[in-house]
Amino acid sequence: MATLPALSDAEADERARAVFDDIRRKRNTDFVNNFWRVLGNDPPLLEAVWGRLQEVMGPGALDPLVKEMIYVAVSVANGCDYCIHSHTAAARAKGMTPAQHGELLSVIAMASQTNALAAALGVEVDERFRA
Amino acid sequence: MATLPALSDAEADERARAVFDDIRRKRNTDFVNNFWRVLGNDPPLLEAVWGRLQEVMGPGALDPLVKEMIYVAVSVANGCDYCIHSHTAAARAKGMTPAQHGELLSVIAMASQTNALAAALGVEVDERFRA
Amino acid sequence: MATLPALSDAEADERARAVFDDIRRKRNTDFVNNFWRVLGNDPPLLEAVWGRLQEVMGPGALDPLVKEMIYVAVSVANGCDYCIHSHTAAARAKGMTPAQHGELLSVIAMASQTNALAAALGVEVDERFRA
Amino acid sequence: MATLPALSDAEADERARAVFDDIRRKRNTDFVNNFWRVLGNDPPLLEAVWGRLQEVMGPGALDPLVKEMIYVAVSVANGCDYCIHSHTAAARAKGMTPAQHGELLSVIAMASQTNALAAALGVEVDERFRA
Amino acid sequence: MATLPALSDAEADERARAVFDDIRRKRNTDFVNNFWRVLGNDPPLLEAVWGRLQEVMGPGALDPLVKEMIYVAVSVANGCDYCIHSHTAAARAKGMTPAQHGELLSVIAMASQTNALAAALGVEVDERFRA
Amino acid sequence: MATLPALSDAEADERARAVFDDIRRKRNTDFVNNFWRVLGNDPPLLEAVWGRLQEVMGPGALDPLVKEMIYVAVSVANGCDYCIHSHTAAARAKGMTPAQHGELLSVIAMASQTNALAAALGVEVDERFRA
Repeated sequence: MATLPALSDAEADERARAVFDDIRRKRNTDFVNNFWRVLGNDPPLLEAVWGRLQEVMGPGALDPLVKEMIYVAVSVANGCDYCIHSHTAAARAKGMTPAQHGELLSVIAMASQTNALAAALGVEVDERFRA
Repeated sequence: MATLPALSDAEADERARAVFDDIRRKRNTDFVNNFWRVLGNDPPLLEAVWGRLQEVMGPGALDPLVKEMIYVAVSVANGCDYCIHSHTAAARAKGMTPAQHGELLSVIAMASQTNALAAALGVEVDERFRA
Repeated sequence: MATLPALSDAEADERARAVFDDIRRKRNTDFVNNFWRVLGNDPPLLEAVWGRLQEVMGPGALDPLVKEMIYVAVSVANGCDYCIHSHTAAARAKGMTPAQHGELLSVIAMASQTNALAAALGVEVDERFRA
Repeated sequence: MATLPALSDAEADERARAVFDDIRRKRNTDFVNNFWRVLGNDPPLLEAVWGRLQEVMGPGALDPLVKEMIYVAVSVANGCDYCIHSHTAAARAKGMTPAQHGELLSVIAMASQTNALAAALGVEVDERFRA
Repeated sequence: MATLPALSDAEADERARAVFDDIRRKRNTDFVNNFWRVLGNDPPLLEAVWGRLQEVMGPGALDPLVKEMIYVAVSVANGCDYCIHSHTAAARAKGMTPAQHGELLSVIAMASQTNALAAALGVEVDERFRA
Repeated sequence: MATLPALSDAEADERARAVFDDIRRKRNTDFVNNFWRVLGNDPPLLEAVWGRLQEVMGPGALDPLVKEMIYVAVSVANGCDYCIHSHTAAARAKGMTPAQHGELLSVIAMASQTNALAAALGVEVDERFRA
């Protein structure tokens, strides 16, 4: 368990349960993952996060799979184990191949090491990189 | 300036200058950015990082532009100002549109907030997200 | 288990046990949580950390509950699962209501996303924000 | 400058300018800080962030000053220089005294060191801290 | 389990198994730890990381034990539980005493708190610290 | 400038000036760097941090130069530009050679990338790495 319990449908209040229903409907599944069930303890926050997530992660100028891989990258750098697992699964569900996963990992590892080197060296931003 | 100086071609030793030349050739430009010029103080590290970067960032299962956006995402989460500027510029040079940039920012912001929430709530990873 | 064992009172040396006793006395409980029991492997560090914690977290210009919430906020941003759990529990013991917890989570999530955006955009600090 | 320019009112499009106007009105000032002016390059993101910020930071179960201090705490842990400066200024504008600022800094420093120690020791979360 | 399975020798392909064999040979042990077994799902990445690790961690201007302690320090600051455990074990195998471990922890804790304070205060880098 | 001003000796109160004097005496220099001058706005915190720093960084089971390199490593991972500069300078003052600096950078870069990979893969800690 966590700092707050993951609520079953029966334990959730009406507003939270409405979001759980919307998650099942939009994702065409009967599965609601723990993140939402724990967030269900605070229905206004649950609604705000779920609402914004749909706006951000849907199709647009970037492919939904690309968005999931960016999500994984941020989650790795922030060390969020839950988010790494859930968004890696989401990326696979959207078609990420093992080769793409391998390249995602390689870019994340590369960026992590040059981030550290640029910080350690205190490199000044080149004029031409500024807007 | 930084913790080590950015070396001009004249200041760099032969091994470092050979990498600077390779950067200019591969990128088809006469510009060598500060990261490499500072790293030039340690030629073996410069060679290792430049060599690996080329393997990782070239075409493959993921589009080079997608790789640059993943690089930006990691750099933002790690708070590396230099890397954010240089890889945002690289992404633009590879065709990133303002709309794509806006969606990249939105996904990064979204992931950052759910990373924090999942951590704050201590959410347990769902069984089905494990390999 | 961890990188060092959590010491029972019998396993701890005299200096560590004296701190465990002080923790019980000051907190008016017979419970000593794992953080202190693991830190008990290094009595001078245990004494330094416990001593400083009391100076910092006691009443002063800020309410003790407010201090616990600030502690949780830092721990979330640093991704420290242990600290998130222990200081969320401490905040509840000091009277944090579910509504206050919900607002704490919302502020943490909001800050996390604008931290990421300000970094991604490389926003310059406004003159009037400088001391 | 940054990865995108800070837009003057004249440079911003109509949607961005409407947000700038709303910021001035709600804050009762003629000053719009750089964060919003840079975010003005992406009006939908600007609207989403500004809208959510007002919901989160207004009065509620927590005092607005407490919220600003939590915001500072997260921003410090994430190393966001811009956010540290802007929210420290906001906390002062809401009445934060030097003594409160000092205690805020002390709690942040304390949490940062015990976060590191708990991580370094791999301390297991005590059963009683779980929901 | 993880986002990818830890491969036994039988499950690994030829390239991955060759790296496992090299790990056993170089470390003079029959034990291959999980990091490599999970990385074995992507043989090119496994080879690149293992190859680079040997170049970096071997004897040179710094003692191998000192390198392991630096590795632990970075891993703590990044909150990488796996790396903290594996490199603390490696440091012990290379002779780290309890007193050295205690001082390592103390320095990490000290740096973590002054890192936070310097960020919170936005301290300007002194001219004489620049290269 | 920063979120608080760097105080000259004339601007500092008696308690802060006593710490500045102690810094000059212990370090045998007439230079007091900005970190302490800004912290001088909160004399009790200044005393606590300076006092603890001396206990932690002096000779002991680890060499003072090794401690400085560990300090740099943590500061890089936390992205603290001020601390990177000041402790890199301190390490040089204690004899760090360019070759040692290069290896320090290489270990930090290596750890940063395997930290990210271990997180991305969600690798389980091996039983034998636990205390």
